[in-house]
Amino acid sequence: MNHIATNTPEKPVTTSAPPEPGKVTTGPIFGSRKVWSSPAGHPEIRVPFREIALDPSANEAPLCLYDTSGPYTDTDATINVAAGLPKPRADWLSRRGFSAATPRAVRPEDNGGATGDRLVAPCPAPHRVLEGGAASCVTQYEFARAGLITEEMIYVAHRENLGRQKAAPGAAGRRKDGDDFGAAIPEFVTPEFVRDEIARGRAIIPANINHPELEPVIIGRNFLVKVNANIGNSAVTSSAAEEVEKLVWSIRWGADTVMDLSTGRNIHNIRDWILRNAPTPIGTVPLYQALEKVGGDVSKLSWEVFRDTLIEQAEQGVDYFTIHAGVRLAHIPLTAERVTGIVSRGGSIMASWCLMEHRESFLYEHFEDICDIMRKYDVSFSLGDGLRPGSIADANDAAQFAELETLGELTKIAWAKGCQVMIEGPGHVPMHKIKENMDKQLRECHEAPFYTLGPLTTDIAPGYDHITSAIGAAMIGWFGTAMLCYVTPKEHLGLPNRDDVKVGVITYRISAHAADLAKGHPSAKLRDDALSRARFSFRWEDQFNLSLDPDTARAYHDETMPKEAHKTAHFCSMCGPKFCSMRISQDIRDDAQRIAGLEEKSREFREAGNKVYVPAE
Amino acid sequence: MNHIATNTPEKPVTTSAPPEPGKVTTGPIFGSRKVWSSPAGHPEIRVPFREIALDPSANEAPLCLYDTSGPYTDTDATINVAAGLPKPRADWLSRRGFSAATPRAVRPEDNGGATGDRLVAPCPAPHRVLEGGAASCVTQYEFARAGLITEEMIYVAHRENLGRQKAAPGAAGRRKDGDDFGAAIPEFVTPEFVRDEIARGRAIIPANINHPELEPVIIGRNFLVKVNANIGNSAVTSSAAEEVEKLVWSIRWGADTVMDLSTGRNIHNIRDWILRNAPTPIGTVPLYQALEKVGGDVSKLSWEVFRDTLIEQAEQGVDYFTIHAGVRLAHIPLTAERVTGIVSRGGSIMASWCLMEHRESFLYEHFEDICDIMRKYDVSFSLGDGLRPGSIADANDAAQFAELETLGELTKIAWAKGCQVMIEGPGHVPMHKIKENMDKQLRECHEAPFYTLGPLTTDIAPGYDHITSAIGAAMIGWFGTAMLCYVTPKEHLGLPNRDDVKVGVITYRISAHAADLAKGHPSAKLRDDALSRARFSFRWEDQFNLSLDPDTARAYHDETMPKEAHKTAHFCSMCGPKFCSMRISQDIRDDAQRIAGLEEKSREFREAGNKVYVPAE
Repeated sequence: MNHIATNTPEKPVTTSAPPEPGKVTTGPIFGSRKVWSSPAGHPEIRVPFREIALDPSANEAPLCLYDTSGPYTDTDATINVAAGLPKPRADWLSRRGFSAATPRAVRPEDNGGATGDRLVAPCPAPHRVLEGGAASCVTQYEFARAGLITEEMIYVAHRENLGRQKAAPGAAGRRKDGDDFGAAIPEFVTPEFVRDEIARGRAIIPANINHPELEPVIIGRNFLVKVNANIGNSAVTSSAAEEVEKLVWSIRWGADTVMDLSTGRNIHNIRDWILRNAPTPIGTVPLYQALEKVGGDVSKLSWEVFRDTLIEQAEQGVDYFTIHAGVRLAHIPLTAERVTGIVSRGGSIMASWCLMEHRESFLYEHFEDICDIMRKYDVSFSLGDGLRPGSIADANDAAQFAELETLGELTKIAWAKGCQVMIEGPGHVPMHKIKENMDKQLRECHEAPFYTLGPLTTDIAPGYDHITSAIGAAMIGWFGTAMLCYVTPKEHLGLPNRDDVKVGVITYRISAHAADLAKGHPSAKLRDDALSRARFSFRWEDQFNLSLDPDTARAYHDETMPKEAHKTAHFCSMCGPKFCSMRISQDIRDDAQRIAGLEEKSREFREAGNKVYVPAE
Repeated sequence: MNHIATNTPEKPVTTSAPPEPGKVTTGPIFGSRKVWSSPAGHPEIRVPFREIALDPSANEAPLCLYDTSGPYTDTDATINVAAGLPKPRADWLSRRGFSAATPRAVRPEDNGGATGDRLVAPCPAPHRVLEGGAASCVTQYEFARAGLITEEMIYVAHRENLGRQKAAPGAAGRRKDGDDFGAAIPEFVTPEFVRDEIARGRAIIPANINHPELEPVIIGRNFLVKVNANIGNSAVTSSAAEEVEKLVWSIRWGADTVMDLSTGRNIHNIRDWILRNAPTPIGTVPLYQALEKVGGDVSKLSWEVFRDTLIEQAEQGVDYFTIHAGVRLAHIPLTAERVTGIVSRGGSIMASWCLMEHRESFLYEHFEDICDIMRKYDVSFSLGDGLRPGSIADANDAAQFAELETLGELTKIAWAKGCQVMIEGPGHVPMHKIKENMDKQLRECHEAPFYTLGPLTTDIAPGYDHITSAIGAAMIGWFGTAMLCYVTPKEHLGLPNRDDVKVGVITYRISAHAADLAKGHPSAKLRDDALSRARFSFRWEDQFNLSLDPDTARAYHDETMPKEAHKTAHFCSMCGPKFCSMRISQDIRDDAQRIAGLEEKSREFREAGNKVYVPAE
């Protein structure tokens, strides 16, 4: 691995407490350090990874992990939320000939009419608004279709390889271990492969040209499974840093993208703070803000106010928009007999509008206009599933599948307009109906990436819906879903706090990783094996550091065996020193001579027919 | 439902705090009450259920749930751990002609040599030891093979039906919704069906004739998926009630069986306290106590000390024994190249013994003798998977599958000896290798019930292994596993505390229920639907009460919306009153006339071909 810069290891702090007012959480995750690596031939492209050095006794190279956390975990970075993050894409974008736009002027309704003390100040970080022209490539899809490889494509290829180099021709290949249900996961990701996947519509890099701070991420069935976390503003915001901290905290634990679902006052300005400090793609649901602008009165929603909101948010740099254009007038009656009706907020707003107006959805009717706006900034579509099931009883019903078919139609239109597209999916689905969702999505939506919420596999566990949904998320991720939207323990009950967000993200990293393992992603198993070797060798510190949440693993261990000496103990607290199965196993392995004798014995035994029960004397 | 006794509803207490010294947790789970019901024609058989009354506005009958919690949640019961529980099986057993045995005398080594203050007093609850004769039926398997239906079989049939009555002949059938992978789940469970499943070896009722306190449970692929929780003694035991409380707490939240994995001092006496106060089957690993008796020196283990331990524990009333007879000398070399060797404590003890002695396992050689002892008391076999994989890397390897094949041989021998048998399974298995485990187990072990630990679907999340394993448990439960052994958040790290045990049990109830739903168990979806209707109607109290953990659901809700009025609010905290999607959906449904019009409109639309995109004007 070609490290071009590294952090000095130091004793990092654990981070369960919120940061001081005006600050965000910084510093590496315990036991790891940020490293930067460049793909061969591209010193200008610096891809971040998280490196975990192992105990010298392991005699193993440090393990390199995918790193979603941005500059916040870099001990060499100076973090100042008022100044915003560095802009890795600035040079790349400047070479593409986009024109500087005259930004839309901010209006009082963009911030819900907040004034005086109640108004969150705009983010002072500099931001120049760009827009693409009609004549040349703007979106990653357009570049890919034109056969061109962007810096973003080179970046994500290196990122997906976890910095690994391509094996030399003729080198012994890794034995394929996994079942990918007909996906085409390569042993090594090249920029050409990335380009081809994007050109086929099977992957997207959500990357607004007005989001130069972005560390690009690829979302597609043939890449590592991604995780989205949702954040939203508090009713009472004491500082902009507090809102940025929600983002920082989510990506620290592994969110690949973050959706800002804020409503109410200050959403424009808070979004500014978030985007200027976001190394990950940011998604929104523009309909929420459009509704705010008309005072929450659905009957006053219109194409004009929606259009204005799209432009406002695209100029700020939002990377993907959830657009509920699949909720058509004709689909609404199909929900009438449901146990839980329409549970998507966007879906119910649009259904309500269609009923009040008794006409087709303006999102559907203006879909081509929406495409034209989103193409201009390369905002990716996340076609919303406004009719997703809200209960086991409603899973895979006529309303859900009618909408999915419409989303398939819209995908083709968006592609024809040059846009990148992913498709949102359910929701609440029992295990035996999950695969049908994936298969139908691939078929109807022409392999555009699927982005699902869970699904929850039972309705009976409010308070534990991160778990009911982790089961469904792992399965649908294995079957081919490209990104999983997290669910926190507070789902259906209340607003998640800091701990809930962390538990939600870690839980979904488990699902995504379990899916990567089952699909046979070439780099997934490296971490499992490293951790298992550490466990078997009683390298406790390595075991903690290699885990998804080193702070919690260490704390749980210390509850039972608090003494420092026990971190190097050759037994664990479950069996104690006398009965440790791991220790006995090590004795077995270490005694190579005895093993050799046993193998001989074993061979004799098997030749004699080891199926035969040896009766008691 | 034929209620023969009910509890008066009252305001129950939440139970997160441990009980007072000398006491155990009692009282119903919030929002429910204990009811008793008898199968038609059997007034002497009283089966417990948990009933949840719904808000009158729901206009729904109370929901009846399976109840594992025993008399502890019965407001009419007087709980005194020194006196033990009532004995529902006493009359049934007394009619079977078993002889009173002269119990084996307790020896100092049974309690690890504890004396004086360090000795936990024996449980004073009366206990008469029975043993079966060679000439007549003793085990449930023998009764079933003889075509006889026991009271236990009638009991579990009613229990599995959740007190439902059989539909009248010719009544409209429920539409089958599920995929059971070739299982044979009936619409209604009859005692005859139970008998036939036991006779085929496809189900067991672990029910030692010396455990009259037992409320019988059936474990098999064609019944509801069961959950086991493990408990063990503390290093410092302040009271016997404290040990009984671990059992009471586990079954309160839904453990169907409990394994006592105690080691060290006082295990005989603590086991007495547990069994006399256990309404659920109790399992143990006799090898652990045998090793204690020889001072932890594996080389001193022998058939004689093991035999003595089997008899000791069988007389106390243990319902199933984990016997690691599949760890054969010839299998041990197969583990030498593993990443994590042998991780089962029992497996490593036996492997160690075989290596030291360089001879075949005494458990394997004396397997028929073991069967003779276990048959005499109807102790069921849980054939241990001593070579289960301890990491993703070792899943489905030669060692694991060689042992599984041996367990298949042993199953036939145990059946020939009249014993009930289930088979233990892994462990750590990535998702794509789970189904192979189930398929091979069914084939090699002749459909004997499978009882798995997880499996964990990744190794990288110590601190969250209840979740990594809940994914695998739900899947293998769906594929056909009959009982899931829980994993707590402390797995691999330390000893679970009270909260960990609760989280582990609730998590595994989620997996088991998700499996029941996916298999299409006829009564599983009733609870999901009732909860979803409550959610859609904003019956917050009903939603809490119907959930697996009402205390946590209520607490989480109250964090965001603490006011009492909000428990009847027609919105939830996620969207607030303005944007509530559920409310909008209700408006849609309520407006029946508009719906009728829409359906007409929808039909016209579909006839005109709704696949065509309507371009923007």
